[in-house]
Amino acid sequence: LIEVSNAAVVLKRYPDGIPTPADFSLTNLPIPHLSAGQVLIKTRYISLDPYVRGVIAGRHMGHQLALGTVIVGATVGEVVESNDDRFKVGDCVLGSGGWQSFWAESASTMRKLDPSNSTPSTALGVLGMPGLTAYAGLIYLGLPKIGDTVVVSAAAGPVGATVGQLAKHAGARAVGIVGSAEKADLILGEFGFDGAINYKTEDLAAGLARTCPDKIDVYFDNVGGATLEAVLAQLNLRARVVLCGLITQYNQATRPAGPNLGPVIGARAELKGLVVYDHFDKLNHWLKLGQTLLSTGALKYREDLSHGLEQAPIAFERLMRGDNIGKTIVALP
Amino acid sequence: LIEVSNAAVVLKRYPDGIPTPADFSLTNLPIPHLSAGQVLIKTRYISLDPYVRGVIAGRHMGHQLALGTVIVGATVGEVVESNDDRFKVGDCVLGSGGWQSFWAESASTMRKLDPSNSTPSTALGVLGMPGLTAYAGLIYLGLPKIGDTVVVSAAAGPVGATVGQLAKHAGARAVGIVGSAEKADLILGEFGFDGAINYKTEDLAAGLARTCPDKIDVYFDNVGGATLEAVLAQLNLRARVVLCGLITQYNQATRPAGPNLGPVIGARAELKGLVVYDHFDKLNHWLKLGQTLLSTGALKYREDLSHGLEQAPIAFERLMRGDNIGKTIVALP
Repeated sequence: LIEVSNAAVVLKRYPDGIPTPADFSLTNLPIPHLSAGQVLIKTRYISLDPYVRGVIAGRHMGHQLALGTVIVGATVGEVVESNDDRFKVGDCVLGSGGWQSFWAESASTMRKLDPSNSTPSTALGVLGMPGLTAYAGLIYLGLPKIGDTVVVSAAAGPVGATVGQLAKHAGARAVGIVGSAEKADLILGEFGFDGAINYKTEDLAAGLARTCPDKIDVYFDNVGGATLEAVLAQLNLRARVVLCGLITQYNQATRPAGPNLGPVIGARAELKGLVVYDHFDKLNHWLKLGQTLLSTGALKYREDLSHGLEQAPIAFERLMRGDNIGKTIVALP
Repeated sequence: LIEVSNAAVVLKRYPDGIPTPADFSLTNLPIPHLSAGQVLIKTRYISLDPYVRGVIAGRHMGHQLALGTVIVGATVGEVVESNDDRFKVGDCVLGSGGWQSFWAESASTMRKLDPSNSTPSTALGVLGMPGLTAYAGLIYLGLPKIGDTVVVSAAAGPVGATVGQLAKHAGARAVGIVGSAEKADLILGEFGFDGAINYKTEDLAAGLARTCPDKIDVYFDNVGGATLEAVLAQLNLRARVVLCGLITQYNQATRPAGPNLGPVIGARAELKGLVVYDHFDKLNHWLKLGQTLLSTGALKYREDLSHGLEQAPIAFERLMRGDNIGKTIVALP
């Protein structure tokens, strides 16, 4: 190895509200020492995800990140040393390296990526956890039918954009809720949504009535809060609501109240909690389907790509503010 | 007919909060004149139900009761005049007469009751809409399995008591949430629940932890509010929550906020809106099953029985305050 140390971003203090770069420190750690069965990987792409805000706060699946710890996250990288026959130097892999330049991981928890794939960062987005979240949540919980109206929030993000495009493939109408005119144009244009609501400039109830004249059959919720409440008021009978994310509350210290559930009774609707970890049995199917759709141009994606580890805290703040467009990824040299 | 007028209770003013007798007027209306295909019935039993509070307020299935109108409700009575071959004088019938001494109804919307049934008022409770609500909601939406823990609120009421007993028959544990020591004794004793929580004297979270050591697989919610929020925090993976009633908010002028839905995601739970009107296809099956269980003593019920039409507003206030025990019924002479 030419490098003698491992640049990393660690948690400096627990953020109050939206995390800013001042909550993180750039530091140099030793290059990890490999145990038996482990592989050392040089990081190429780091995935930044909203759930990490919950991990930091101790509200994600029971884990909390300790101060001084490397920020967690999925990563794509290149094997530089291997103690396992399944991986050799030069292999491109997907693992859980977090915000650092090198990581060591057990061979058993990693996946080798196709070396012919010219866009390995998609393993962090449309062909990774966000894409699987969209696919499994929409198809297995949302149960869209031909002619249904499917609404998704955070629609320009990697999950939302995939939900809308898969809804179209299922024969449904797709309506996206976004937070800027640029995102509205993106989902209507490149992603082929039938309707878009910019909740920062249009009343949500009016926007839903405008874009969903036949009301709402499926709502894929990435945000919670007032958006969820507005959608519940316009559900069709027997509508399905996939509860995937609560980004409106990730940066709050306490859990706010939720929507009044009277309309759920009136609509005989179903609200279903989605955790993507339950659906990894569908990953191979999704990789095959997603790759096919990508290769024909029937599925598209965007990346919010930054370069350099020091950019990670800045990109994370942008993600938490909703100022990103597409999957937030940090590329390392 | 000996009677020349029809004593009735009408809405005098829209209640502010819990309805009191001052919100109603006792009046005399003409005996209804029969149209073709209609039947005239003398009222024997009137069902008082929480949903009527929503009808008065205009928040139940889009209907609102006008001032001066007879209060609605299911009724059991005896045919005194018939313009339809399917009903003859003396038949005992179930219909929708509301709070009055006589009612006229189309033969097509009524059901003849078995004259050998010595307890025809059960057609308003355990063998009527409340019983069907419990049966269909628990079995078709709650999906209880052997060994599951089923929690139900308003557990001493006609829906809740039936839910708990049917949960036991399904091989599940039954835990009821009630508002008095007397009700707790009733559900533990007569109704055979495994656990009871008196939310007025025990912290709900502590009570649920005490009675549900293996957490909660099914929650049948009749109340909403803080009770629902407390239950969501102790759900098992893939729990089912049947949203049946919101009695905590029926007497409020505006719809309060609901529970934070983060725990629903964490538990991968499903919240399902229940409206009994969707389940009348299961009525005959329930009548058969329920009658069998009643006849062997495997299913029990209680009635909060008042005598005389003038008692209806008093009994309704008692019901809205949760001071009733069992199905609220007014018997007419």
